[in-house]
Order: sequence, then structure tokens, then C-alpha cells
Amino acid sequence: MNDQMTKYANLEKIMEPKSVAVIGASEKPGKVGNAIMQNYVDVGFQGKLYPVNNNGIDKIMGFKVYKSILDVKSEIDLAVISVPAEIVPKVMEECGKAKAKGIVIVSGGFSEVGNTGIQEKVVSISKKYNIPVIGPNCLGVMDPRARNDTLFLPTFKIDRPKIGGVSFVSQSGSVGSSILDLISSEGFGLARFISYGNAAVVDEVDLLNYLSKDKYTNVIVYYIEGVKRGREFVELAKTATKLKPVVILKGGVTPSGVNAAHSHTASLAGSAQAYEAVFRQFGFVEAETLEDLLYFAKIFDTQPFATGNRIAIITNGGGHGVLATDALYKNGLVLPELSKSTQKELRKSMPPIVNIRLPLDIGGDAGEQRFVAALEALSKDPNVDAIMSITLFQTPGADEKVASSIVEFGSRKEKPLVVVSTGSTYTRSHTNLIESSGVPVYDSPDQAARALAALIKYSRYRKGMIT
Amino acid sequence: MNDQMTKYANLEKIMEPKSVAVIGASEKPGKVGNAIMQNYVDVGFQGKLYPVNNNGIDKIMGFKVYKSILDVKSEIDLAVISVPAEIVPKVMEECGKAKAKGIVIVSGGFSEVGNTGIQEKVVSISKKYNIPVIGPNCLGVMDPRARNDTLFLPTFKIDRPKIGGVSFVSQSGSVGSSILDLISSEGFGLARFISYGNAAVVDEVDLLNYLSKDKYTNVIVYYIEGVKRGREFVELAKTATKLKPVVILKGGVTPSGVNAAHSHTASLAGSAQAYEAVFRQFGFVEAETLEDLLYFAKIFDTQPFATGNRIAIITNGGGHGVLATDALYKNGLVLPELSKSTQKELRKSMPPIVNIRLPLDIGGDAGEQRFVAALEALSKDPNVDAIMSITLFQTPGADEKVASSIVEFGSRKEKPLVVVSTGSTYTRSHTNLIESSGVPVYDSPDQAARALAALIKYSRYRKGMIT
Repeated sequence: MNDQMTKYANLEKIMEPKSVAVIGASEKPGKVGNAIMQNYVDVGFQGKLYPVNNNGIDKIMGFKVYKSILDVKSEIDLAVISVPAEIVPKVMEECGKAKAKGIVIVSGGFSEVGNTGIQEKVVSISKKYNIPVIGPNCLGVMDPRARNDTLFLPTFKIDRPKIGGVSFVSQSGSVGSSILDLISSEGFGLARFISYGNAAVVDEVDLLNYLSKDKYTNVIVYYIEGVKRGREFVELAKTATKLKPVVILKGGVTPSGVNAAHSHTASLAGSAQAYEAVFRQFGFVEAETLEDLLYFAKIFDTQPFATGNRIAIITNGGGHGVLATDALYKNGLVLPELSKSTQKELRKSMPPIVNIRLPLDIGGDAGEQRFVAALEALSKDPNVDAIMSITLFQTPGADEKVASSIVEFGSRKEKPLVVVSTGSTYTRSHTNLIESSGVPVYDSPDQAARALAALIKYSRYRKGMIT
Repeated sequence: MNDQMTKYANLEKIMEPKSVAVIGASEKPGKVGNAIMQNYVDVGFQGKLYPVNNNGIDKIMGFKVYKSILDVKSEIDLAVISVPAEIVPKVMEECGKAKAKGIVIVSGGFSEVGNTGIQEKVVSISKKYNIPVIGPNCLGVMDPRARNDTLFLPTFKIDRPKIGGVSFVSQSGSVGSSILDLISSEGFGLARFISYGNAAVVDEVDLLNYLSKDKYTNVIVYYIEGVKRGREFVELAKTATKLKPVVILKGGVTPSGVNAAHSHTASLAGSAQAYEAVFRQFGFVEAETLEDLLYFAKIFDTQPFATGNRIAIITNGGGHGVLATDALYKNGLVLPELSKSTQKELRKSMPPIVNIRLPLDIGGDAGEQRFVAALEALSKDPNVDAIMSITLFQTPGADEKVASSIVEFGSRKEKPLVVVSTGSTYTRSHTNLIESSGVPVYDSPDQAARALAALIKYSRYRKGMIT
């Protein structure tokens, strides 16, 4: 494992480069090397940008073009390679001689189409010059903090997420890019994105090692179809999952899905049962769907650990309270009895029509005062481990003051808090504020209950109680 | 049952009134009777509007105010009552004398807070004058085609859905209003919305009877916590579910949820197992979550019946193909072998790099030509019962031409077709077009597989094969 470990000593230069050479840069719209250049311009990359192309063009988007990376004569942190597969080894050799500190190969045409020979050359050149390589056959990396973006998908087709604490690793480019796009409309933000494709050099083990120690990453989210170095992956997981939550969506877990995964990334996918057992043993958080990745990412990014599975539901809509109670039960969570002192306190602060019991239906006319009183009382109750605040903004009483009071209460991080708000324009204007302030918001009680169950399961693991 | 049936002979007048009296109309913003008036103005109601209030005001929003409905002296189709509970019987008597054809009582303060006496009066006055009554303690009705809208939630807080074929019945006002709001951002539209609250007169049986025969309703969607006339409901369902799909989300199916439902609407909720058995036997489509209601509504609203459970997946993203294959399996659906002639046809139309098998990964660079060729070939294959087209608009080849070709292909309705598109701004600009043209679009393969499974199950029921 030590030999393997050395190869990603400085992924930092790939993620946060001060200088980037785009090899295969192009002035022609529609070309991959054009899209990459355009994205560096669009996201406002602050470092040096060196387009490399030997087709005789002088400038691309105002940047001087170099015939070879060897002509640059300045320090290069990251070389992004988008030339055809057969030229990649030659270009990599030049990167090595130019002492580039990291390489991303977005080009396809390697082992995924049977060209194993050329992929082996990529591995040996990487070793020879001791340069970490992401790819080939991938989207590469994105780091909103560093304004680094090797994606060859134009910004108008895919919105970019804001800066945050979630790092997302995807073996599949399509899953990676579409989830990035989805994240962009969520309230939470991204630390690092890595689409690693064929994983010729840097693989899921290296990335787990890197991200588990990364100070900007609060939670790691993986989409994988297969693990090459399974033993090392779980060995490393023993420590990684104790540092921070690692959420995994495994593609190819059913008999037919296994075949599809093998055809897609030549992954030797195992059975759902085998993976589930491993995930549980080593503290991974298992996602069952693409949606789970988002639901789980945002609760882990923002909420403290839970001390147990007793959830207090506050609601300004009776039907949602019923659905949430069902959802808790289905997810192994319970609705506790309130302590006598909480009951007393709530009886004082709520109008007579409010029944003092869980789910606490504070009424469709509930405004800031009732929401605050309920949140305060429930957070102090020793029988309550976490709070689900169902806040329907269609109701007469729910307004920006209610949203602000949830933000203010949520910022204390006393107990895990999630919000459920079902709706469109008016609702989203408030939920965006709430979520970007660090309280996760879900469209439905079921989503929120799934997320709470994942948080509670992981909280127990971290306390040494594997469930 | 005959006696019961008479009471809703003319729900038509409640849904599509030519004249509406708003009893308790108010000029004061924040009042329920103000919000109702404002909504009639905002949605552009084309009939006569008669505000009724005896507080001496002459005009509200430009409309002449009447002291009593008896002063109107013109035909009144619908009376919307928002006065305090204790005045409701008196006002109802006047409605009866004025020969109003239908009543919606939005006011609360009846049996839901223990005032059974006053609710009994509502029932007896309804019987005396033979007027159908929706409510009390409800949001009432909305019919976008008739521009009829008794909701007392302002349009800025809750977006209104467009006209379509889905009718939504909700016992809970909060579930009803938030789902309406959600539907407004979907591509499909609404036929009728009815929030029936305490169901003093018109109940779930009457509504099922009405909507199952309603020519504008393609699919009926229910949120219920309990059924008062259980035997009649399932008796009627025997015929209703053979006329059109009836999707039901039942709140209060778990032990703790049952208690919550009882506290909310005094419903005697049964166990999940008991309901499931009934749902299955009588051909209801069971939704497990709020999201299911939407996923199911849009496939039933637009797609033909399926002849079996063999699904062809087309994808321009490999990872999504793997996830979709897993999702099919989890939902009891299968990925068939393609017929020899389909294989031959696809081999001719696809580039060599495309593997001719399911899931059919047509490549990240696939444009209109490949999508059309794949859809054409698969729709002709006798081994294929339905098609899931995963269309990721982040990819270089997917553009408005791809969207248009899916719309054009989908309009033929040869086999059930669903689209999966995961993304934000650019993606949604295309998926809104696709969905409003009658092809349901899902964010993830799991959602699409759930919807297909529901469609297939119901298709089998309609063919007499209860599964």
C-alpha cells in the first residue's frame, strides 16, 4: 500500500492549481479543448492559463498558445490533456519533463474500449515521473473554491454548485455531471468534485485517503460501480469513516445491474448483499438512489450527531404530521413522549386549540412566535434526540419571519434539525435561505425521515455502536 | 346507497359555477373572505361574483356587496361560506331559500373541535334543501378550466397548476395545498381539486363516484386518512377503478401514524396490511409517499397501458443506465433481449462503439439521429413493452432537437414512454417542453421505474390479471 500511497502525495496541485496547461486547447467551439478553455474563463480562474496546441494558432481567448508544454518555461501545477488517446503518451512524457505536478486526462479511447496497451503506458509514465494522474476517460475535477474546472461541459448546459463542504467522487461522468447540476439548485455547496473514469493511476482508494484528510471536506459522497482494490479500500475505510461520513451509491447491485455495470466500466460488481454487509461493517452510509446522495449529503454537511432515534415533529399542517409519523416508523425512528416540563411549557405558549403531544400540530395560522416556542421547548426536552420542523409556507402564518427564526435557531446546532417544506416559488424563496444557512430542507416527510435515519445510524457507528 | 347518491347529483355546479356568492366576503386583507374574493379576481373568474356581508360595506374589489344571499335575486350556482361556525346554519338556510345549487363551507369549528351538534345541523339543512355541501373545515375546490377557486391561500403563496387531466382529492388542506403548489411546477395539469375536510355531506365515496364519470378527469389522486363509508367506497371502487386509475396515498398506516391520523381528522385508520389488501383487491394504485402521487399521476395521465413488464432502456449516460437497470429489477421489471431484427436495425444506425444490447448506451455524443433511431427500433420490437429514455441534457449531443424528437415520438403513444433527465436550468427548459407535450419526465431512474411499475400493475388489473 505504501507504494500506492505515494502517487497522490500532491493531489492538492490538481485540485488547487496556480497554473494550468490545457493540452489540446482549441479555438473551435464544440471541441473538448475549447470547452475546457471556455470554462476556465467562465469560472474566473485566477492563476496562469497556458493553452497548448501545435496547429499554428497564436492566441485562444486572448491567451498565448504554446506548441508544447515544454515551451511554457514556468511552473505548471496541472496539465489537462484532451488530445486523442494515441498522442497521450508523448504528451505525458513532455509533462514529465516540464515537471508538471499533476495531470488530468479527459480523453477517451483507453481500456474502456479495449486499448489496455495505451493505458498501461499512461501508468508507467506516471510512475516514471511520479506524477499523479486522474482519468483517462473522465470529466476530471472541479473545485469551486479554487475556481478550477476541467469539465468539458459548457456552463450553460450545467449549472455550477456554490462553495461548500460536500465532496463528490464519481466513477461515471454522466452521474457526476448531472448530480453537480442538481447540487447547483440546492442550498448546500461543494468542496471538491472528482470524476476519475478509468482510474489508471489515481483510484477510489487514493481519493478516499485524500478526501478523508481534506480540511475543506465535511462529507464524502461516492458513486461507484466497482472497486479495484477492494481490500485496501475497506482497510482504509476503517479509519476514513471515523474521520467523516462517507456516503456511497453503488451502481450494479442487482443481477441485471451487475451486467450493465460490467459493460459500462468493466467493473466486477458484487451482489447487493455482499456490498451491504461491507458497507455496514466499515461504517459507510449506503445510498439507495441518486436522490439519497443529496438527501444524505446535506444533513451530514450541516447537522451535529444524534444521541438517539427519538424525533420530535413540529408541523403547521396536520396531514404532513400524519405522513411524517408514518415515515418515522418506516425508517426505524420513534416519536417520543414529551417530558412533563416540556408539556407544561408548551401548554403555556400555545393556544388552547393546540394539542400538546407529538406530532405537535401548531396550526395553519402558526407564525414566528409558535415556531420559536416549539423549537425552544423541544430542544430542551431530554426525550428528544432530533427535530423535524414541517414548515408549510402556503399557510397564512408562515412567512419570512418564520424562515428567519428557523435559521437563527438552527445556527445553534444543539440537536439535529431538518425542515420539511413542500411547494414551489414562494416556498423555495424561503427554503433556499434556510438551507444555505445550514439547515437542510426536504420536499417531503419521507425524504427527511430517510436522512435522519442515515444520520442516526452513522452517529451510532461513530459512538462504537454498529447497528 | 341510492339515498346517498342523490346528494351530489350536481357537483358540476360546485366545480363549474357560472355565478358565485362569497358569504363572509371582506375588504380587509388577511381575512379569509378577502383572500377568497382576491383569488376569484386573480384567476380571472368569468361568471357573476356576489360578495355577501352585512357590515355595511358597499363594494369589495369593485363588486356590489349584498347584505344577504337572499338579496341577490339572480341564479346562484355556488355559495362559498367563510363565516364563523355558529352563523353557518342560518346562512345555509338562506342559501337554501335562495336556491343555491351547491355550497362550500371553508370555515372551521365543527366536529374537528368536538362541535358535532353544529355539524349535524349542516347535514340536516343540506338534506332539507337537497344542496350538496363540501366541507366544512376545508380549502374547498379549484377548477382551472372553469377558473373557479375557493382557496383562501393567496396566489403569491401558492402557484396554481395549469389545466390538465389529473383530479386531486385531499382530506387534508395542508397536503392538498402543498401538492397543488408542487403540481404547478410540473409539466402536467389539473382537472379538479377538492379539499373536502370534515366531509359532513359530500365524502370520499361521492367524490369517487363523481370523478370516475367526469369526462375531464383521466386519473384520480386521493390523499385520505380514513374512509367513513368503507363498504360503499370499495363497492363503488369495483366499477370506478375499471373506468380510470385511482391513486391513493393513505396517511396513518403505521401504529404511530394511526394515532396521529385519529388526532388530526378523527379518522379510524386501519393497519397498513389491511389497507394494502383492500387496495390491491379493488384495483387502487397505492402510493407510498407524496412524491409517488406526482410520479404516478403523470404517467397515468398521459401513457397507454403496458402489455407487460419488459422495459427497454435507452441512455446517453452509462452510469444512469446501470442505475436504471438496478431500479427495474428492484421494481419487478425486466430488461428483455432484443429481437434479432431490432439488433440488426440498430447495428446499422449506431456507430461501431455502441454495444447493441440493453441498456442501450448510445453515447454521450448522441444527438437527434441516434435518439430517433433507437426509439423507432425499440418501439417496433415485440420483446419491448415500454421504453425508458434517459436523456441527459448536460451531454454535448443533447439539445432542443433531441427534446423535440422525443415530443414527436411520444405523441404517437404506441408504447408507454418515460424520460429520465437529471439536472437544473438547461435541463428543465427542455423537460418542461417534453412533459407539457405529454411525456412524463423523472429526475432519476428510480422514480421512473416506480412509475412504470405502477402503470404495469394497473394495466394488468384492467386486463383482469390481478397481481
